[in-house]
Amino acid sequence: MVFPQLAAFTAAPGVIRLVGHRGARGVLPENTIAGFEFAMQSGVSLLELDVTATRDGVVVITHNHHLTPSMVRDGDGNWLQGSPPKVSALTYDELRPYDVGGLDSRSAYGMRFPDQGFLEQTRIPRLSELLTLLQQEQHQGVHLLLEIKSDPDLMANSAARNTLVQAVVAEVRAAEVQNRTVLHSFDWDLLADCQRLAPEMPASFLTQMPENDDDIGEDSSKAVNPVEGFTALELPDKVAAAGGQFWCPYFLDITAESLARARELGLITVVWTANEPADISRMIELGVDAICTDYPGRVQHLLRRNGLHWQVAPTVA
Amino acid sequence: MVFPQLAAFTAAPGVIRLVGHRGARGVLPENTIAGFEFAMQSGVSLLELDVTATRDGVVVITHNHHLTPSMVRDGDGNWLQGSPPKVSALTYDELRPYDVGGLDSRSAYGMRFPDQGFLEQTRIPRLSELLTLLQQEQHQGVHLLLEIKSDPDLMANSAARNTLVQAVVAEVRAAEVQNRTVLHSFDWDLLADCQRLAPEMPASFLTQMPENDDDIGEDSSKAVNPVEGFTALELPDKVAAAGGQFWCPYFLDITAESLARARELGLITVVWTANEPADISRMIELGVDAICTDYPGRVQHLLRRNGLHWQVAPTVA
Repeated sequence: MVFPQLAAFTAAPGVIRLVGHRGARGVLPENTIAGFEFAMQSGVSLLELDVTATRDGVVVITHNHHLTPSMVRDGDGNWLQGSPPKVSALTYDELRPYDVGGLDSRSAYGMRFPDQGFLEQTRIPRLSELLTLLQQEQHQGVHLLLEIKSDPDLMANSAARNTLVQAVVAEVRAAEVQNRTVLHSFDWDLLADCQRLAPEMPASFLTQMPENDDDIGEDSSKAVNPVEGFTALELPDKVAAAGGQFWCPYFLDITAESLARARELGLITVVWTANEPADISRMIELGVDAICTDYPGRVQHLLRRNGLHWQVAPTVA
Repeated sequence: MVFPQLAAFTAAPGVIRLVGHRGARGVLPENTIAGFEFAMQSGVSLLELDVTATRDGVVVITHNHHLTPSMVRDGDGNWLQGSPPKVSALTYDELRPYDVGGLDSRSAYGMRFPDQGFLEQTRIPRLSELLTLLQQEQHQGVHLLLEIKSDPDLMANSAARNTLVQAVVAEVRAAEVQNRTVLHSFDWDLLADCQRLAPEMPASFLTQMPENDDDIGEDSSKAVNPVEGFTALELPDKVAAAGGQFWCPYFLDITAESLARARELGLITVVWTANEPADISRMIELGVDAICTDYPGRVQHLLRRNGLHWQVAPTVA
């Protein structure tokens, strides 16, 4: 199957693509409308985001399954304490008062993003809010790498998985942005559902080798990622065998050899999440298709220093 | 004289103020509407900016007197070459095609801001464009630290200086934001004109001791700053003697002793431009009134780590 969505994520002569991770997490709070708007305004036309659903089935843009004290304040502006609830245990109305406009600067997670702006009164957005934005004339070129988060507690529950995928797909179709959306997950069973239920959208196969450290302060995705027992070099073949055309390896796992194998298999390779200049430069040197980053301006700077760009035809007067 | 503008720049218990330098130069191109909008959206309510005038008297927001190859592209998107013209030698229509939406990543100036986003089709704004923005309901709390750039070639030309000050003041008054504007300059003769021509706006006295290195890639202001022969400790007294209530020292020049003297004299002390975490932390420790920075999110993070904020009453649900 030829997917029209793929060209936007594919490298071209002089071009390596740039994906804004959760908007632009290094600059503004992740998975917020403000963050997505900033990324788009900065010339980022590929947006990565995470979705899950509330108890009443509203698809919302957020990463962790539980509301996380380092990044969520209650309606009075106080950091959450103790063991806050799961997003999936709350109705959308119950979720709405929480404020995700900034990080607790004293938390381990907050220390990871020392330049992130601090906002007030910022809500966990519904997916539909972002999709509505994308319908605006100036955002017609924006594509989504839409990550569907599988709950590790529900891995055996195929009905729950199916319901989530159907809810997400229904919203994307209702907004008529399916031709600009790639469905992205660590959970390859969920991706199989996506391929079956939404054959018009490519599936993006995330991988992270188990030996990597988890990212501090956020949910690990390893529990749902079926790569145990594979070598890093085998990953492209496993993606192809699952019917994938789109591979998203962790940036520390990719090598020139595995990238070459991915190319032989016709896979697009989008690495996540390269933030340090040395790591970004290594990805540029390897020649991946796209770099997913929390620091879009930094990737733009390094691409330009190498005489490269992130768009095939930058708008010029 | 009691100026209503001063409270917004004055420290309070638990509060050190945050001034976005040229918008948020570390994040988006300096002195652009996009940069100012980003800063305001990030909760920055004090904006520093630079103005000069075109040959036909249009007040525009830009720092260097000459169009600068490291930060200006021509209408075709190519970096300027050779010795580009002065802004004051061009009419506004001649200036308008130039694009200031990003830095040449290979230039010494571009290397100083490796996270700055790269935009296309971004014009040097008129001052009036920013002032119009400030009239919007949500920006009523925003104050300006409006730097008027003196041309070192025209220091002996008091008529030229007077014309520039009058043009700036007329625009501020026309937009009715004079009660949210502080007039800021390294040129104390120009500030004397401001005090005379616009007695309703406080003058902000910039200082930089001559022994400091110039900032790479941008016009030096030392030629117009009359501090030669003073010691750093004498600066607050000199500001007070010039009728000033507002002192803006270079961050490397200020000490606990000079800050204490400024406080004795009743001066507000706003330091420029602290960007490195260690420098920002030292300013927080000193307890200045406000920190002018290219990285507002970074200052927010460090203030919060110290249990401080940049606004007296953060909006809370």
